[in-house]
Amino acid sequence: MSQIKIGIIGYGNLGRGTEAALKQNPDMELFGVFTRRDPQSIAPASKDTKVYHLDDLSAFTGEIDVLILCGGSTNDLPAMTPVLARSFNVVDSFDTHAKIPEHFAAVDSAAKDGGTIAVISAGWDPGLFSLNKAVSEAMLPSGANYAFWGYGVSQGHSEAIRRVDGVLDARQYTVPIEAALEAVRSGAMPELTTREKHLRLCYVAAEDGADTERIEREIVTMPYYFDEYNTEVRFISIDELERDHQGLPHGGNLFRTGKTGLNEENTQVIECRLQLDSNPEFTSSILVAYARAAYRLQQEGQSGCRTVLDIAPAHLLPMSPKEMRAKFL
Amino acid sequence: MSQIKIGIIGYGNLGRGTEAALKQNPDMELFGVFTRRDPQSIAPASKDTKVYHLDDLSAFTGEIDVLILCGGSTNDLPAMTPVLARSFNVVDSFDTHAKIPEHFAAVDSAAKDGGTIAVISAGWDPGLFSLNKAVSEAMLPSGANYAFWGYGVSQGHSEAIRRVDGVLDARQYTVPIEAALEAVRSGAMPELTTREKHLRLCYVAAEDGADTERIEREIVTMPYYFDEYNTEVRFISIDELERDHQGLPHGGNLFRTGKTGLNEENTQVIECRLQLDSNPEFTSSILVAYARAAYRLQQEGQSGCRTVLDIAPAHLLPMSPKEMRAKFL
Repeated sequence: MSQIKIGIIGYGNLGRGTEAALKQNPDMELFGVFTRRDPQSIAPASKDTKVYHLDDLSAFTGEIDVLILCGGSTNDLPAMTPVLARSFNVVDSFDTHAKIPEHFAAVDSAAKDGGTIAVISAGWDPGLFSLNKAVSEAMLPSGANYAFWGYGVSQGHSEAIRRVDGVLDARQYTVPIEAALEAVRSGAMPELTTREKHLRLCYVAAEDGADTERIEREIVTMPYYFDEYNTEVRFISIDELERDHQGLPHGGNLFRTGKTGLNEENTQVIECRLQLDSNPEFTSSILVAYARAAYRLQQEGQSGCRTVLDIAPAHLLPMSPKEMRAKFL
Repeated sequence: MSQIKIGIIGYGNLGRGTEAALKQNPDMELFGVFTRRDPQSIAPASKDTKVYHLDDLSAFTGEIDVLILCGGSTNDLPAMTPVLARSFNVVDSFDTHAKIPEHFAAVDSAAKDGGTIAVISAGWDPGLFSLNKAVSEAMLPSGANYAFWGYGVSQGHSEAIRRVDGVLDARQYTVPIEAALEAVRSGAMPELTTREKHLRLCYVAAEDGADTERIEREIVTMPYYFDEYNTEVRFISIDELERDHQGLPHGGNLFRTGKTGLNEENTQVIECRLQLDSNPEFTSSILVAYARAAYRLQQEGQSGCRTVLDIAPAHLLPMSPKEMRAKFL
């Protein structure tokens, strides 16, 4: 059987994660990486990876089965996904929750015009967590949802700290509060404030002679990012920061606590828990699974935009329905 | 919008759970319960529930949208599902894992002949756990699966104890061993024997004057059921058994521990955890969600047998794709 040919658009953490994930999926092969930078300036992790300039992509229409878009949700994907969906099957991990309806509409129209399949928001939140939320709520329609994030690095919060005057670099860890987690896990349905659910732990390297009291105050009072949380600021040297905080771990716990029985007297808890050494590599692995689905759906003659809610588990797997049933049921 | 009309076949724990679950789903209504017993002998939990004899079911072809089959996997479903799938959309929770391929083939052929949709094995194991296993393995193709069951009542094991001479009644709880759970949860990939994963805890009411030492020995050495486990037998009075052990709690933890990165240097753990006050009511709730999907798939013109692997989350939910995306993504 011929392999599904994948193009990677963008070569940051997600692009590198996708390059690695493709090696674990023998039904797929990497056609190449496309970048806006000078291709000569890119040293791919795998020496057999070809690097092209993004401007040359259109020359390969028809040769690439699915593009995996590894750009950011703020600037790259809103513009890029609809344009590329006119000529290619595409998958992205667009994660600005509030703007998904708008992104969906733009991409759906482009993909229908192009006769392609576009899967958007195929990461873990949105993505795997969305899938679990939807399935859990279908099974337990009466109940409540809870979500916790971490222990893990929030890149948005780390970036917000870096903008504080006198900060050289910073890493912010989101920490779920164990007591809140345990209360939810027990099946109780507590009302929890923002402050009761998560702690924000900040490792900050300040400039020599900077006023660390002022920096700390500016961080903990920063609206939206920190003011509603208990925030702990730890000043460390830039060397320590670079030595001990280069990883991008993350995770989360998603709960559906449902009531069943004629008088809703019984409590049923569904928990989905993620513990990730590498947040971007996990997102990449999800993108690759949905790239397979995008390819298959287009082969079936479908077109348009899809999300994880529209895709059956069978479309994600490189095996026959019969093998799947024997293995997973 | 007219409601989806549901027939319940069989009125044991699952049937009663389904009756209750339907009340939580306003897009569905209960047409009636069908039983092999004398309908007059059945006192439904809800006084507006109609009870019919199973022999009269064929009179209602065309009036019922989906039948939810609430029989057992050993004797009822292998015969019943294929027969009923010829005339009705059906959903069952057939759970004899090894016989699912055979059951699928018989039901698929009947449903195709009848132009109906049949969803089989739509419980939690097989069912929700199968869905999670499939999705997790698609996302993390290199790794290992772990499953734990409990804390909960195993009806098969309880029944096995009841067959021991001198036993009046018994309840067997399957208990996951915390040290093994924690080892897996940490991301380590331990090799675990059957004995290291679960303990079997048995509450036994013996006849007056019975030889409890012999009963205990017969239980703990019983092949397949107990001999590979550490088994603890606690003798209690029949009154205590009836007072303290009437519930049917269950649960489980399903793990996918995957490796990602170019040298598979990072560990990613996906855990799905269930904690159920009522095992049958949870299964019923799942059957109801898949009954909705069965109805929709047939409305789309499809026919044949399906499992949880073939059904997208969107088909399980009573809302428009647009509402779903706004809510879950």
